[in-house]
Amino acid sequence: MSERDKSAATIRIAMLGAGTVGTSVAQLLARHQHDLAHRVGAGLELVGVGVRDIGKPRVGIDESLITSDLESVVHSGADILIEVMGGIEPARSLILSAMQSGSSVITANKALMAQDGAALYQAAEQYGVDLYFEAAVAGAIPLIRPLRESLAGDRVTKVMGIVNGTTNFMLTKMDEEGADYDEVFDQANALGYLEADPALDVDGIDAAAKAAILAELAFHTRVTLADVYCEGIGEVTKADIQAAREMGFVIKLLAIAELVADTGEEDGIVVRVHPAMIPLHHPLANVRGSFNAVFIHAEAGGEMMFYGRGAGGDPTASAVLGDVVAAARHRVLGGRGPGESTYSGLQVLDIGRAETRYYVNLDVQDRPGVLAAIANAFAANGVSIQVVRQDGHGVEAGLVVRTHSGSESALRATVDQLRSMDEVRQVLGVMRVEGEE
Amino acid sequence: MSERDKSAATIRIAMLGAGTVGTSVAQLLARHQHDLAHRVGAGLELVGVGVRDIGKPRVGIDESLITSDLESVVHSGADILIEVMGGIEPARSLILSAMQSGSSVITANKALMAQDGAALYQAAEQYGVDLYFEAAVAGAIPLIRPLRESLAGDRVTKVMGIVNGTTNFMLTKMDEEGADYDEVFDQANALGYLEADPALDVDGIDAAAKAAILAELAFHTRVTLADVYCEGIGEVTKADIQAAREMGFVIKLLAIAELVADTGEEDGIVVRVHPAMIPLHHPLANVRGSFNAVFIHAEAGGEMMFYGRGAGGDPTASAVLGDVVAAARHRVLGGRGPGESTYSGLQVLDIGRAETRYYVNLDVQDRPGVLAAIANAFAANGVSIQVVRQDGHGVEAGLVVRTHSGSESALRATVDQLRSMDEVRQVLGVMRVEGEE
Repeated sequence: MSERDKSAATIRIAMLGAGTVGTSVAQLLARHQHDLAHRVGAGLELVGVGVRDIGKPRVGIDESLITSDLESVVHSGADILIEVMGGIEPARSLILSAMQSGSSVITANKALMAQDGAALYQAAEQYGVDLYFEAAVAGAIPLIRPLRESLAGDRVTKVMGIVNGTTNFMLTKMDEEGADYDEVFDQANALGYLEADPALDVDGIDAAAKAAILAELAFHTRVTLADVYCEGIGEVTKADIQAAREMGFVIKLLAIAELVADTGEEDGIVVRVHPAMIPLHHPLANVRGSFNAVFIHAEAGGEMMFYGRGAGGDPTASAVLGDVVAAARHRVLGGRGPGESTYSGLQVLDIGRAETRYYVNLDVQDRPGVLAAIANAFAANGVSIQVVRQDGHGVEAGLVVRTHSGSESALRATVDQLRSMDEVRQVLGVMRVEGEE
Repeated sequence: MSERDKSAATIRIAMLGAGTVGTSVAQLLARHQHDLAHRVGAGLELVGVGVRDIGKPRVGIDESLITSDLESVVHSGADILIEVMGGIEPARSLILSAMQSGSSVITANKALMAQDGAALYQAAEQYGVDLYFEAAVAGAIPLIRPLRESLAGDRVTKVMGIVNGTTNFMLTKMDEEGADYDEVFDQANALGYLEADPALDVDGIDAAAKAAILAELAFHTRVTLADVYCEGIGEVTKADIQAAREMGFVIKLLAIAELVADTGEEDGIVVRVHPAMIPLHHPLANVRGSFNAVFIHAEAGGEMMFYGRGAGGDPTASAVLGDVVAAARHRVLGGRGPGESTYSGLQVLDIGRAETRYYVNLDVQDRPGVLAAIANAFAANGVSIQVVRQDGHGVEAGLVVRTHSGSESALRATVDQLRSMDEVRQVLGVMRVEGEE
């Protein structure tokens, strides 16, 4: 511990929410009391826990601290308010109210940060308090702090991550066990991995909220959930996964934010969530089950990856407590954490401006000239073909094409044209390809 | 950018050293001037660069800033001193002198931090300045800040990393190309990857310095280079690597710091650097070439890994500039970075107390009862065998044993006993095994 200031009074902590994460936070605060006091330079004391349902049993939290009077918790004069109740309201109003009362806020609320982060940042600024949210993205993995602070002297060009453990669990099962979508959905459900509204997971909405948060930090540009292009995993079939595997790829639900520059059009960023094929040798390919990982490319720093547990009570609580220590140290030693940084004000561009590659699987006529006609369709849209593989012939004739990098709009136009061609009986599958140079 | 304080004067930066890293730092400071000013809330200005050899050409640094009068740089009244000259002296005295003059210090000097970090921390404390050293371990990878800050609310139990890019490049070449040690040594030398004194790389000394720094941060206990057990890669043969590969393992030079508790003896930590076999499915196994990665296990956060470029001008400069932004923000907004944290004061235990597994390759007599005799030798030392594989017979009889987890001292005693047995013609290879549960 620093010798700087041992005179500090106790740091008082209030908490909203006492579910899995809140319970872990309370338990860790108690268990690591001694360590935390040394690391902060003052003791930490939990002074109130607000819950919606007072009747639920809570293990490891002093009953006398629990109340359903959320306002009283917010106005308890705590140095730090931890918000782990989730949802937009009343979390939003309670946080703003706590900041007004002078509390620093630690939140794990990705939906709120992605939807209305600006209002929270502004209040933190106005009332001179800290706002930390490491737990909102990728659970225990230190990611927000590295992006906001460690990479603050560099220029990030791309962030690409597996940030939803449930869908990664499902895709991993489909890949490793050859299960189909409905089976793995049921398994995930039975294991309690799915959100109350499963669409948040499988439609990519949870991942999109995290993508918005990461994009804002990486590019110093305000990004909200509404700016994120989003496709879920509902259309991914066992056949897609097998085809990918045969070509040396694996399918992952990726959250991607990247700089699109020097294309002759206006610079900006594209933020998107969709399933994509990535090569088996890519660091993200080995991220299995419910693990999360985020790959970052920075101009000077080069490629880096952060890997770990993206969810669960203890991992999320670990991230919350790291932020608690930071905010508490500011109470003891002075100083403030970083505020909102949106000075770049880049355009958030349409998905059409993204640069990607396509994999296209076609059921084609078996007659001379078909390959030439199809190659022409790609060329007409300015899309360059990297690999063509022809399978079978006669009524079974199939053609698999992987393209070089092109704009999403050109790739889409190509697929539309393919769909309209006599030579193409059916477009069997289309998937974006990421992680190849 | 925060709106908090735009009135701040320029932050003045001085630098010692203008080699590969220093040149990158100066170039990035100029190229990212606009971004950095927004992120800090004040402009950053390079006011002096001290070098030992004034005659060398320096690209991208204003010549008028360069001087060989190192003292004048230190006493230029800079807000921040960047030290990227390396070596113990004069770096150490110059840093202490700069702190006394009120400069915050950013250093990439792992040798100095590992040998005499305590003196630097103490001076930073005494003079109320920041001391940051993200670039000292694993180049561009944010690692020091996550350990010091993000994981400050958790309890780290193990840190295990590939932290020397040169030896990882060499071992990767031996593995992927079947090259032998002398060949890859020559290649690394030709590519300029080796330190002026190659022993720093191949004998594990560079890795040991980084292990000491990581161990101190992870366990809040003072650890210096002298506390680190260290074996290099000079004894690793092509045959070892092939044998490992056949069993589904790869050999890496690992830096490991871990808590040894609940063994009935005194708790403490063991810090060690040595080659070890890790299973191919382990996240560290895919860290190839000159990349670095550090795997951390924390009680609540679980397993996490940080991966990226461990060396090179730009990656190291990226880490330096992240620290510059942090220290500069403290000048603008108040506050201080974390100081030394050694409150735990754990014992640094002898390597004998480490818990590990052994792989042992034996040339044995081919006669009945040999396996039983050997199994008895393991049992007599309390070491449990996980796998035995018998290869060939007659004069070619070989026996490969992989053990369950045991104390290093018991494992060593077993190997000593094997060496003395008539049944064992020769102990062909012994290697520790890490990363298995």
